[in-house]
Amino acid sequence: MRKYELRSVRTGSLSGAVPVVGIVSAGQLARMTVQAAISLDVPVRLLSQRPDDSAAMVTPGVEVAPVFTREVLERFAAGCDVVTFDDELVPPQVLRALEAAGHVLRPPSGAKLYAQDKLHQRVGLAGLGLPVPAFRAVEGPGDIEAFGREHGWPVVAKAVRGGYDGRGVWVLADAAAGERLRREAAGAGTQLLVEQHVAIVRELAALVARRPSGESVTYAVVETVQRDGMCRELLVPAPVAPGVAREAAALAGRIAEAIGAVGILAVELFETAEGLLVNELALRPHNSGHWTIEGAATSQFENHLRAVLDWPLGVPDLAAPAVATVNVVGAAHGGDPHAALAAALAVPGARVHLYGKSARPGRKLGHVTVVGDRSDDARERANRAVAILTAGKGG
Amino acid sequence: MRKYELRSVRTGSLSGAVPVVGIVSAGQLARMTVQAAISLDVPVRLLSQRPDDSAAMVTPGVEVAPVFTREVLERFAAGCDVVTFDDELVPPQVLRALEAAGHVLRPPSGAKLYAQDKLHQRVGLAGLGLPVPAFRAVEGPGDIEAFGREHGWPVVAKAVRGGYDGRGVWVLADAAAGERLRREAAGAGTQLLVEQHVAIVRELAALVARRPSGESVTYAVVETVQRDGMCRELLVPAPVAPGVAREAAALAGRIAEAIGAVGILAVELFETAEGLLVNELALRPHNSGHWTIEGAATSQFENHLRAVLDWPLGVPDLAAPAVATVNVVGAAHGGDPHAALAAALAVPGARVHLYGKSARPGRKLGHVTVVGDRSDDARERANRAVAILTAGKGG
Repeated sequence: MRKYELRSVRTGSLSGAVPVVGIVSAGQLARMTVQAAISLDVPVRLLSQRPDDSAAMVTPGVEVAPVFTREVLERFAAGCDVVTFDDELVPPQVLRALEAAGHVLRPPSGAKLYAQDKLHQRVGLAGLGLPVPAFRAVEGPGDIEAFGREHGWPVVAKAVRGGYDGRGVWVLADAAAGERLRREAAGAGTQLLVEQHVAIVRELAALVARRPSGESVTYAVVETVQRDGMCRELLVPAPVAPGVAREAAALAGRIAEAIGAVGILAVELFETAEGLLVNELALRPHNSGHWTIEGAATSQFENHLRAVLDWPLGVPDLAAPAVATVNVVGAAHGGDPHAALAAALAVPGARVHLYGKSARPGRKLGHVTVVGDRSDDARERANRAVAILTAGKGG
Repeated sequence: MRKYELRSVRTGSLSGAVPVVGIVSAGQLARMTVQAAISLDVPVRLLSQRPDDSAAMVTPGVEVAPVFTREVLERFAAGCDVVTFDDELVPPQVLRALEAAGHVLRPPSGAKLYAQDKLHQRVGLAGLGLPVPAFRAVEGPGDIEAFGREHGWPVVAKAVRGGYDGRGVWVLADAAAGERLRREAAGAGTQLLVEQHVAIVRELAALVARRPSGESVTYAVVETVQRDGMCRELLVPAPVAPGVAREAAALAGRIAEAIGAVGILAVELFETAEGLLVNELALRPHNSGHWTIEGAATSQFENHLRAVLDWPLGVPDLAAPAVATVNVVGAAHGGDPHAALAAALAVPGARVHLYGKSARPGRKLGHVTVVGDRSDDARERANRAVAILTAGKGG
């Protein structure tokens, strides 16, 4: 294991006045959190799997460990006042052990579990009377078939743990497909749940930032436009009836309070003809909040830091009537977006963010935000810049 | 001399597609430029005098050298594709030697000289027919007295080189004071110029970003409110007649073109009853442009990077009707602003920037920007947050 010098924590000016925030994993979410931390002069340490992970490349205070064992995490946490996360991947039992050893995790393990365990989330939210699709745990042969008979085919099966960004989710056409998957999953030791395949009008996301002391702020509700099981565009504010936006925001606020979220909570929602249903939760800055960097009075990254430090939260107001954010996703025959960066910057108002990742098909490499007066214009310009960034031939 | 690992230049993703930008000096201007560079994934190297200089603490790619000799600068420039600056302190003859050795300086030495040599600036701008206060070089005894007789007392004397932020400027009440200063300056080898003490209605600043290819953008003209010879507040847009704002912007654009500025050019102006006069030039991101981080569609820091890379410039438009920025300046009995950070963040809409510098009286430690609909409200809130940050007792 290599250990980098932790330069960010021996600054003369800080003299212990500001707590050290540790971030576990050094992807693009950590990278954008680091940018926000520079403004507030909050000292950040990163725990990174590789020295060239997205955030590790732009931060002096990085500890590199290929595997985040409990021992690695303990040692890392010992050098931080508060530990937060770039992803949902540290196992719940490890998080609980860290808390038992006295480390301050924000969000705490109990809240994080709602993002890590889909069955816990479904049972928990349903128990609170919050709207989720019909679901059941898959415990043995016949469970999927029974669920399909009751709710109609197809059904959606999900890995209870470890599913992420479209992986670990299957649409099952019939009982035979269900039984095939159940047997494979059982063989792999993967627990499944099955749920109703709902007819979606739109996918939405609502972001809340919440402090341990309870204060919270909610951002404008976003439409997340998906392609190939991946979020491609954010349209802000979501083009929904005002009542739907209010309900989505209220729902996110209730969930944050109910599960004891700390930091950013992203609530992914299905808008259906019958109303809103909760899809997934994320307890960290989230792709659906990238528009807040230029589009809100305070970015999700700054508010995540402020929340995990239990500091007053920043105003979440929209900075303009319309914001569009489009993800830069590696194309099948696409080149390195860096080679097209200057050309993309010629698109008026295009705010380009590249994450420092090597181009691979399907990989999120960056995003472009356009802030403006009209949604269609902002969306067109953001898409134009992304098309330029992803058009190059592979190198 | 200590040399840090230059991690930012061995990222897998960049593969040479984006030029490496070197910044000489690692103060807060470099720090905020680094933040902008992270978004665009532009690799930045810093040359820093101390390992705990403002930008050095937040950047992996730092070379530390206590003195920037020509040899140090040559070696640093050899690792960069483009070299730019955080200040005006590298001597003109060293800049010319670097260019002669084939290094790309942006701005070039010839443009930089207008910020480094006040006599060169006055002579050059006057020669172009641009408005400057009446001035003359002080070459011998009697020059100051003759100037004062012609233009009236008091007069202003300035060190031709090395003056910075209020130092190196003297207001002379009479011929005796003038002769005293002249003799002292001659003894120290400091060349002086003397100029008219003009009656100032307001101080203004106009910022231009300009590419080597000639494209330029001009930001909204700013009122810079001074106290104790130091800029304390920025009010944007400046509360001046539209004709004055237009003239200031046009003047800045003409100067940028005439001197071949590259990157940010800040033109400090006096508004007088008789019209505008040019005060100082800076060829780098400037304190009078800090409002652009939240208050403009593209910050001066991002546009400085884009300009020195000869990339398309970003839209400079105001993001809101009113922006106020107030500097956090170390108070005589003030404490560490970090200790008051959480309290200051409770001021709604206060966007706090701390530079990671230890608190000393008169030192610029950070700034606070508030973006809003009304100038008086934005100004009041920014001042309120700064008052909190600087109120603490020294520690």
